[in-house]
Amino acid sequence: MQTGKITRRELLIGSSVMALGALSSSAHSAFLPNSGGVGFPLPWPYKKIDPQEAASISYNGFYTAACCYGTAKGILMPLQRLVGEPYTLVPLPEAIASGRGGIAGWGTTCGALVGAAVVAGFIAPLDAAESIIRDLFHWFGETSFPIYEPVSAKNVVRTRSASNSPLCHIAAGKWCKKAGKPFKHPEREEWCARLTADVTAQAVTLLNSWSEGTLGSGRRNPRTVYGAPAQYNCLECHSGGVPEMKKP
Amino acid sequence: MQTGKITRRELLIGSSVMALGALSSSAHSAFLPNSGGVGFPLPWPYKKIDPQEAASISYNGFYTAACCYGTAKGILMPLQRLVGEPYTLVPLPEAIASGRGGIAGWGTTCGALVGAAVVAGFIAPLDAAESIIRDLFHWFGETSFPIYEPVSAKNVVRTRSASNSPLCHIAAGKWCKKAGKPFKHPEREEWCARLTADVTAQAVTLLNSWSEGTLGSGRRNPRTVYGAPAQYNCLECHSGGVPEMKKP
Repeated sequence: MQTGKITRRELLIGSSVMALGALSSSAHSAFLPNSGGVGFPLPWPYKKIDPQEAASISYNGFYTAACCYGTAKGILMPLQRLVGEPYTLVPLPEAIASGRGGIAGWGTTCGALVGAAVVAGFIAPLDAAESIIRDLFHWFGETSFPIYEPVSAKNVVRTRSASNSPLCHIAAGKWCKKAGKPFKHPEREEWCARLTADVTAQAVTLLNSWSEGTLGSGRRNPRTVYGAPAQYNCLECHSGGVPEMKKP
Repeated sequence: MQTGKITRRELLIGSSVMALGALSSSAHSAFLPNSGGVGFPLPWPYKKIDPQEAASISYNGFYTAACCYGTAKGILMPLQRLVGEPYTLVPLPEAIASGRGGIAGWGTTCGALVGAAVVAGFIAPLDAAESIIRDLFHWFGETSFPIYEPVSAKNVVRTRSASNSPLCHIAAGKWCKKAGKPFKHPEREEWCARLTADVTAQAVTLLNSWSEGTLGSGRRNPRTVYGAPAQYNCLECHSGGVPEMKKP
């Protein structure tokens, strides 16, 4: 792009306008580096990776910096080896580590899902990334975790549990209730570590399918199905399904 | 770092182990570029920016690619001008645009909050980023939106509403109920656009305070307060507070 006659500020402001067309079409070429920059335009190159290798990195990554760091590290470390730059230049797993505990401990979206969603957005165009994320969120709610069996387990986990929700507080809370154990327990931590590995393996499987052109259209946007952003299982909350607080 | 005698794979595997110490201390120097890479280690340089300039960029950014893109663009575009690289090299707002609608339309964490949280993690060390995020989430729930008044408004919005929740489905749903309007309505869209500007201005205010050393310790991690990841207002959900579904 010829930038000789416009300022960097005009370029940057222009990028916001150009983003409209880009995001509505290929969804990802909206980024304009400044006139002195090189930049790493989206989508970043992807090569198929081994879901089990990624899961193993994520399991160990969980014990380094928890769930959000774990899924991001599991997907990105193989891409650092297979692709190199720009994956080797941007410390994305460390930057989004605050996604842990449903984002900074608030119990909202499971941090493992947040990590996978953020990474997918660097690899796949927006529409494809959202299809991958919706498939991943839906699979997450229906899956009884953990599936992953570590080669060298940090702890045991005796209870498997499904959440019917992508929310950390609900997913972990249901496990705690079923297991009869508090959140602050090595088995719950191991449950989250293996769940993190499982989310990574599933995200990689979806990314591999997308890269082969076999992903399909994915699930519809809940906004379209329900007329508002929502989970697929309204009555999970809207039918007195949320338990009363126990008396202390 | 001298890498002459170890392979890239060893380096990458090593980075995961080194991350443990790094994340438990400064939280951010865990990233190792490959032996051919330069890398942009965390935290990225920050210069104080104008909350109102950032809010204005976010408001317009919302109408480009919605809430998550909007907050990220509002914070990062001024930093592209004031700092330059690495902000000019990484298309972060476009990469995380799928955060819209509570992440790909699932109604989980408000996308405006997700965008601000991801950006904060590149700027502030993990502990500080999490303090900023917790303050932002708490402020979000208690604030009656919108506050922001666009210089050139795309639509009107007649109803102000507070959510008591960082979740998109709950925040937008409460606005729709109070306004008596469906989610798919120009006033709801304008409400989200101005809320996105408000979240950006508040995030920038917190980042500026952090950069001046006046942020303080912030709110405690809900995991510590409640023994599990959670909001601060348990009875919002755990007291029959979730309405029954209306009959179609």
